Amino acid sequence: MIGILGGGQLGRMLALSGYPLGLQFRVLDTSGDAPAGHMAGLVWGAYEDKEILNSFASGLDSVTYEFENVPVGAARYLEGRLPVFPPSRALEVSQDRLFEKQLFQKLGIPTAPFAPVESKAELTDALHKLGAPSILKTRRGGYDGKGQLVIKNLKDAAHAWHALGGVPLILEGFVNFHRELSILAVRSKSGPCAFYPLAENHHREGILRLSLAPAPRWTKELQTQAVSLAKKVLNELQYVGVLAIELFETSAPKGKTGSVLVANEMAPRVHNSGHWSIEGAQTSQFENHLRAGLGWPLGSCEARGQAAMVNLIGNFPELPASFEFPNAHWHLYGKAPRAGRKIGHVTLCETSVKDREQALKGLYKALEMPDPRA
Amino acid sequence: MIGILGGGQLGRMLALSGYPLGLQFRVLDTSGDAPAGHMAGLVWGAYEDKEILNSFASGLDSVTYEFENVPVGAARYLEGRLPVFPPSRALEVSQDRLFEKQLFQKLGIPTAPFAPVESKAELTDALHKLGAPSILKTRRGGYDGKGQLVIKNLKDAAHAWHALGGVPLILEGFVNFHRELSILAVRSKSGPCAFYPLAENHHREGILRLSLAPAPRWTKELQTQAVSLAKKVLNELQYVGVLAIELFETSAPKGKTGSVLVANEMAPRVHNSGHWSIEGAQTSQFENHLRAGLGWPLGSCEARGQAAMVNLIGNFPELPASFEFPNAHWHLYGKAPRAGRKIGHVTLCETSVKDREQALKGLYKALEMPDPRA
Repeated sequence: MIGILGGGQLGRMLALSGYPLGLQFRVLDTSGDAPAGHMAGLVWGAYEDKEILNSFASGLDSVTYEFENVPVGAARYLEGRLPVFPPSRALEVSQDRLFEKQLFQKLGIPTAPFAPVESKAELTDALHKLGAPSILKTRRGGYDGKGQLVIKNLKDAAHAWHALGGVPLILEGFVNFHRELSILAVRSKSGPCAFYPLAENHHREGILRLSLAPAPRWTKELQTQAVSLAKKVLNELQYVGVLAIELFETSAPKGKTGSVLVANEMAPRVHNSGHWSIEGAQTSQFENHLRAGLGWPLGSCEARGQAAMVNLIGNFPELPASFEFPNAHWHLYGKAPRAGRKIGHVTLCETSVKDREQALKGLYKALEMPDPRA
Repeated sequence: MIGILGGGQLGRMLALSGYPLGLQFRVLDTSGDAPAGHMAGLVWGAYEDKEILNSFASGLDSVTYEFENVPVGAARYLEGRLPVFPPSRALEVSQDRLFEKQLFQKLGIPTAPFAPVESKAELTDALHKLGAPSILKTRRGGYDGKGQLVIKNLKDAAHAWHALGGVPLILEGFVNFHRELSILAVRSKSGPCAFYPLAENHHREGILRLSLAPAPRWTKELQTQAVSLAKKVLNELQYVGVLAIELFETSAPKGKTGSVLVANEMAPRVHNSGHWSIEGAQTSQFENHLRAGLGWPLGSCEARGQAAMVNLIGNFPELPASFEFPNAHWHLYGKAPRAGRKIGHVTLCETSVKDREQALKGLYKALEMPDPRA
């Protein structure tokens, strides 16, 4: 039996993809109504509670986690008892934007210029160094665009310091990018790695709205760049499982042609920008995450046609009961609707980029949803 | 919440396909270790026990079943309390080979010649009428080739009567067919119907071994014939859910070209010859069965490439842990291995018939399994 720290939609989709492999699951969550608890045994309690961790771990073969804010201490404690994947060091690095950037830098992976900020004076210094606009972010705990502010001038700086100061911060220089991409990489406990085709991602209000995979205008050259940088991270961390790296596509320096991929951040887990793989790839990210953790041969990451994944955020009418959309793959998470909350997603799988665009247009119309690219 | 009578692999795959739609499940099974009980609430008891049925039904929105030997009385009892799909009349007809054949005959659907047999004298009469070879079958309770014997001569007849007599029997005339096909049809509670492309099926020892979908040499003309006869059954029974009809492809009568499809038997449920649809069609038979029962718009039955579904029967080494086969979609049912038992299946999805054949050849080799067509 596999244990999952966190019983949200990612844990839910891990379990749903693992049952056909003959696996069984138990989840630990702070909520008694966690989405993964509908189809797996649920232990309800705090991640820091050793008694809870002991009863959760009892009889498990291995443990994984579905969100990166799992307390590192909990992962370490469990690592002392049984195999935990991804390794707790990946968790530690990805929980701190400074550590993350330093890792990218160490591995020669292009990243935005950055400086740690612990005081108002350090913020002023960093701004002089990196220039404006820059983005001030909390080093820990931010997600979906929370805990960050753009600084365009000194007045913004004072405001941002007032809003965010008091916890460790990082100032990141501005990256002039064409678009956001992500690479989903997977490394098995037994060594082999595999990589999904790059996805193109579109956010609004800091929340992922749409992923297109393979990314429009996908090239072998872009894929090779992404695979190469992801490999460095996988190897450095002796990683096991799925790792997501968010990337910016930027212009090559003057005098060179093509694009340069700049790493933005990483998540040591299955990732929203990989949900398309359930129907859009030969093997889903969820299945491959489990195979990796068990040391099984990985499944093919090859795309099956052209997929579009649309997040359902907030409140919706009865889905899919009230929608005539024969090619839509609905994924509802069993969560109560709430503004800004990811309650599900829909994946479309078409055979050409043109068909994908047309189907997507129809879906947005049916759902009365704006295209985030418009 | 949806209740499922029977907690075998079909119930398991129904639940797994329904969770992403935001549905929840409870199963009733006579075994405390039923495969669907790993991911859904399990009520453990006899289908005939009204107290058990009451506690099973409490709080459910509707009920379906996953095997056709559910006692009709149990389905009827539940029908008095809440919506049950498919209708109990479909269950009644499909549980009796004579009723089934009579239904096909009434609807003008080609079927093997047949005669009811209740005595040794009736068997002799029937043999004179239908000729040899014929097949003597129990009217009720047979599956996977059990409860039937081929009669080639009068000596066989005596033996067959000795082996099977004492319960209501049916003698079926021999059908000279090229191959076995099946059509999976689905009718929604709200009326609309949809049809999967014909699958070609290969049995050994009376057990399904391999389904190819769409069937090799699929033609629009064959599909139209199959859809037309399936529609008649759906309408006659005011059917709701997925219905499988097994067909023989036979030569057209002298002087005509093409093929004639002859109905063999039907199953008022999701069916082994439709498992390919999980990865091989836009919407799986399991999802469409649930959509149909809820009156939701049906998903597309369109094929996604060329699928092959290989049943895993009996005993196997650790799957998929020990097999490097990146394009294989494994489905294990969580059942203990036993000779002749369906413990899982593997689906391959390729883009051409040629690739499908090649992948299949590789899979049979890896699994050290004979090709049932060889």
